[in-house]
Amino acid sequence: MNFSSDNVSPICPEILNAIAAESESAALPYGADDKSRQLDAAFSALFGTDVCVIPVATGTAANLVGLSGLVSPFGGVVCHHHAHINMTESTGVAFYGSGAKLLGIDGPSAKIEADTLDRCLGSHISNGMHSVDPECVAITQSTEFGTVYDVAEVQAIGNVCQKHGMRLFMDGARFANAVAALDCHPADITWKAGVDVLSFGATKNGALAVDAIILFDPKLRRHTEKSRKRGGHLFSKHRYLAAQLLAYVQDDLWLRNARHANEAAKALQKSLENMGATAAFPPQGNELFIHMNDDLAQRLRDAGIVFRPWASIGPDAYRFVCAWNSPIELIKSLPQSIG
Amino acid sequence: MNFSSDNVSPICPEILNAIAAESESAALPYGADDKSRQLDAAFSALFGTDVCVIPVATGTAANLVGLSGLVSPFGGVVCHHHAHINMTESTGVAFYGSGAKLLGIDGPSAKIEADTLDRCLGSHISNGMHSVDPECVAITQSTEFGTVYDVAEVQAIGNVCQKHGMRLFMDGARFANAVAALDCHPADITWKAGVDVLSFGATKNGALAVDAIILFDPKLRRHTEKSRKRGGHLFSKHRYLAAQLLAYVQDDLWLRNARHANEAAKALQKSLENMGATAAFPPQGNELFIHMNDDLAQRLRDAGIVFRPWASIGPDAYRFVCAWNSPIELIKSLPQSIG
Amino acid sequence: MNFSSDNVSPICPEILNAIAAESESAALPYGADDKSRQLDAAFSALFGTDVCVIPVATGTAANLVGLSGLVSPFGGVVCHHHAHINMTESTGVAFYGSGAKLLGIDGPSAKIEADTLDRCLGSHISNGMHSVDPECVAITQSTEFGTVYDVAEVQAIGNVCQKHGMRLFMDGARFANAVAALDCHPADITWKAGVDVLSFGATKNGALAVDAIILFDPKLRRHTEKSRKRGGHLFSKHRYLAAQLLAYVQDDLWLRNARHANEAAKALQKSLENMGATAAFPPQGNELFIHMNDDLAQRLRDAGIVFRPWASIGPDAYRFVCAWNSPIELIKSLPQSIG
Amino acid sequence: MNFSSDNVSPICPEILNAIAAESESAALPYGADDKSRQLDAAFSALFGTDVCVIPVATGTAANLVGLSGLVSPFGGVVCHHHAHINMTESTGVAFYGSGAKLLGIDGPSAKIEADTLDRCLGSHISNGMHSVDPECVAITQSTEFGTVYDVAEVQAIGNVCQKHGMRLFMDGARFANAVAALDCHPADITWKAGVDVLSFGATKNGALAVDAIILFDPKLRRHTEKSRKRGGHLFSKHRYLAAQLLAYVQDDLWLRNARHANEAAKALQKSLENMGATAAFPPQGNELFIHMNDDLAQRLRDAGIVFRPWASIGPDAYRFVCAWNSPIELIKSLPQSIG
Repeated sequence: MNFSSDNVSPICPEILNAIAAESESAALPYGADDKSRQLDAAFSALFGTDVCVIPVATGTAANLVGLSGLVSPFGGVVCHHHAHINMTESTGVAFYGSGAKLLGIDGPSAKIEADTLDRCLGSHISNGMHSVDPECVAITQSTEFGTVYDVAEVQAIGNVCQKHGMRLFMDGARFANAVAALDCHPADITWKAGVDVLSFGATKNGALAVDAIILFDPKLRRHTEKSRKRGGHLFSKHRYLAAQLLAYVQDDLWLRNARHANEAAKALQKSLENMGATAAFPPQGNELFIHMNDDLAQRLRDAGIVFRPWASIGPDAYRFVCAWNSPIELIKSLPQSIG
Repeated sequence: MNFSSDNVSPICPEILNAIAAESESAALPYGADDKSRQLDAAFSALFGTDVCVIPVATGTAANLVGLSGLVSPFGGVVCHHHAHINMTESTGVAFYGSGAKLLGIDGPSAKIEADTLDRCLGSHISNGMHSVDPECVAITQSTEFGTVYDVAEVQAIGNVCQKHGMRLFMDGARFANAVAALDCHPADITWKAGVDVLSFGATKNGALAVDAIILFDPKLRRHTEKSRKRGGHLFSKHRYLAAQLLAYVQDDLWLRNARHANEAAKALQKSLENMGATAAFPPQGNELFIHMNDDLAQRLRDAGIVFRPWASIGPDAYRFVCAWNSPIELIKSLPQSIG
Repeated sequence: MNFSSDNVSPICPEILNAIAAESESAALPYGADDKSRQLDAAFSALFGTDVCVIPVATGTAANLVGLSGLVSPFGGVVCHHHAHINMTESTGVAFYGSGAKLLGIDGPSAKIEADTLDRCLGSHISNGMHSVDPECVAITQSTEFGTVYDVAEVQAIGNVCQKHGMRLFMDGARFANAVAALDCHPADITWKAGVDVLSFGATKNGALAVDAIILFDPKLRRHTEKSRKRGGHLFSKHRYLAAQLLAYVQDDLWLRNARHANEAAKALQKSLENMGATAAFPPQGNELFIHMNDDLAQRLRDAGIVFRPWASIGPDAYRFVCAWNSPIELIKSLPQSIG
Repeated sequence: MNFSSDNVSPICPEILNAIAAESESAALPYGADDKSRQLDAAFSALFGTDVCVIPVATGTAANLVGLSGLVSPFGGVVCHHHAHINMTESTGVAFYGSGAKLLGIDGPSAKIEADTLDRCLGSHISNGMHSVDPECVAITQSTEFGTVYDVAEVQAIGNVCQKHGMRLFMDGARFANAVAALDCHPADITWKAGVDVLSFGATKNGALAVDAIILFDPKLRRHTEKSRKRGGHLFSKHRYLAAQLLAYVQDDLWLRNARHANEAAKALQKSLENMGATAAFPPQGNELFIHMNDDLAQRLRDAGIVFRPWASIGPDAYRFVCAWNSPIELIKSLPQSIG
């Protein structure tokens, strides 16, 4: 069992079939094909409002291209210190943002709290053209520590953004897991709460490689498309991105996969706690951060379980990530099988 | 029949099977999986020298990331005015090159001639830190007008580059078609001729989406990997890029596909000439640029043949591109079927 | 006598006095001082319309910062191949323009002709997000070959720009020499002709170091000020830029200096022609490009005259530049003194 | 009396005379003149080692251009949160550094402590191409809070940098004040302590506008010169930068000016303390940060004293900056004159 990340999982059958089904015929390139032209409608239906969908092949691309329209070359993006865009995407935000700067803030379990954000933005003293003034806020849902903003929390952050004239970006590499955990409508934690742009992840949750930039503000389309092209992220065989995304949202596949992963994580938490581990954060999505002693860690490794130490939380901390195909029954039987 | 581009073709079966075969098990992300770790060896064998392989999902990314290590932020990339990097990749070279500038030159049928290049580089008057001095030459093989540099031509360009201290980049979006047309060893038109970096295209020739940056100079690896990551082109499920590439080079699939496309283009040329068209350039790869009158163009369209006008060559000019799956027998019978 | 450039000339007395006069008292930094606050009014009076003035210390900075507000990161700036921004400012346009690309066109004596520009813009085939589409036109007044656009020519270019939705930038490093040569109102060749931004040169014409970015569109102020600051061009002792500029435009000093330089160039042309040289272009401002034989060139050098060969015009071509302090009587007597 | 900043002070007589002396004759541009060619020798003598001097007109330019050669587009610059490059230079570090990122750390009175730095660098977990790894450390001497690193402190930081393979940059906008305060040789707190590049400020300490980038590593010259030119910071009348710098270091003018400013600051501290203020930090250079009550602040303002509130230190905190021309006797008599 490999819990090192959800990106170790393969393509799920429905999406593989959708790719294979595209392998019969010719189709126009660069998004002019039939499948690509269905994207806006499909996601507008899913979100209950008109959206513009710009697919790319990686979550980093979705974040960087998606953010690029929300901040000027002289502006700042407020995010949590532990945000993926701050920790794990090289200098990509400055690259796609022509110099834009990340402004890290703190908060429990990788979450920005609305009050903290309000204080931070309210106490920021602009020094005119000398200072980097915040122009955008970026949150991750579910977060880098496996926690989930509930509907009220996102709404509160959206309100703070509106109050201070900030655009709001959501890194949704694990958006499906958050929606599944909250059992809410996707609109509730996006445009209804003030999110301008969402990176809607599919890669980690069953796709081969596709994450969609969802624009809730259609005026962003032109810049975002140009940024995508210039970054080298416009697929010629664009239909293969579209086919993956359409299969992903058809019949709620995205939610079914996410619910499975979340359930697996809950089962894993229980099994690990039974063996003596303790959760570092209340796990809500498909990521589990736990503390355990060396002995337990070694026994798990000896049993072929793969997982990663997570030093930023502590020397005895580890991350386990479940996926759409994690074997729930095996997970439940871990305490017995490892003993 | 759709000849508007080779990128309208679907995935070929061997590559689809390779993708499907990856859908059984977990694998480490970001290139640490078994398939990805085979890439350097597979391509080193193919090229007959040690190479470093850095796969990305689009040809534009392969060009831009690949070039980024060969030119400084203050330097120039000499290319043909009609080069894809100059005409069709937005401001991508400056983006990935931190400001680097394209310096266009002329030449027949989208080819740079070694003599012209030598004169151009020899007559360039550097103005020190004021001027943009050439640091790199980029050629496309096969070219944007469907022609192919022969071995001696690439070697001559390589010699000029060496003489003037230039790095040499090759945009090989249709590299397979060139090798198939020349019936040469891939080494003959790359590292043996002085090419430092090659973008080795697979997407147009049967893959879903993968082009490989081939580094013949291992010292470029670190910069190129960092540039790929920052650009958002490092796949988490990297194995799917690797699987495509390994299938593509196994049992000469890349050359078989290219030979098929080239043969189809030759048959198409013959058929069109039989109907009154004339080739704008001697077609060598899988792209065909022809002149024809409105009547013939209309009859082809009426028969459901798809192709594109090509205004940069002339008002009566059109492009037809064949692919790995073009129906050669149908193409041969065009004069009869259209009448 | 040193004709290698007008930038070899020292500060003129009026401007030196203005600098010295600022050396008595304290003044607020970054443009909040009294002198700086007079700039907008002084130049609005000079141009006969409301302008915003943003001073920097070099002509390159004035061009690059000034252009940065007129073109997107994905767009092109049409200019003459011989334009200073294309030939002598490194990769600065892409740097300040976040990737923006120069698109060189031809024209006689370094001038863009309105008809050529119209054809070029009219025949440009946008390829959507793939291509770099022109967004701005940049002309130099007076030009890099010492010629001057007359009022009708600038107006015609302005009309073409308006027709095609282009912004219009003017590199006026030697703007004073052009106005002096044309004996026109500065409005006639700027905002009345459609110029959006002008770099108004003073450094070559008597200042220590200051060129002003003149914005005819006040909406550009915010971006331009931020770009100036980020580029490191916002002076703390801003008053010294302002003092130079105010002295430069007071009592028509700028025009008096320019008239002197133009007159010197005319005298020099006459003297050189008397000695057998021929003008490469009809000299209109303070720059003179001539053809002469080796013998004459050597005799001039032997007499201590400094000037520069200009290979881009021809092997027997040379440039002579006169300045605000060129010794006109000595110049007139050159044929006698050299013999 | 205006203590709002040292940049409100005018040019000092020696430097104004040097500028005026350059106003007699012609001189070659862009650093080829006699004065500019003396710079390397003059500063090599001053520092007791071979240095390369690259002058620019602002402190921000000196910092940004100077740093640009010490960090890759994917790397990080460790600095204090309160560093000028982090707080007051827009997104300039990312701009000149092609994306390079600032990594802020804490420390008392705007100083980085060697132990903290060592822990920070030692505990940094590189995530390969995903993370931004520190490549350079930047310190300010004297600091943004008016404190001064002593010789041992700089040496300790230099040792930590060497241990971790970091380059070391020093923002010396007020370097003279630090040397004057320490009464040390300038070598002791620069190259002997491991500093690679120093921005050597003159503007605030008596010049019109010039700060010199001092390269202790000559291999940085080429990149730094290209970066300066592209940024628009290469003066055509370069001799006026050189003349200022030569006058500034001749006969220890830079130290005499700095000693005066430091002495004025000490006198001011004493006067303010006599009136009830308390120093926020031990003042060492020419900047004074104090706490005082509203009543005292108002009485000072009523007496025509100009100074600035400094909210980042506290609601009752203010900054006073003395300069080369601050009236020491008047400052001493403040308690009497204000009463």
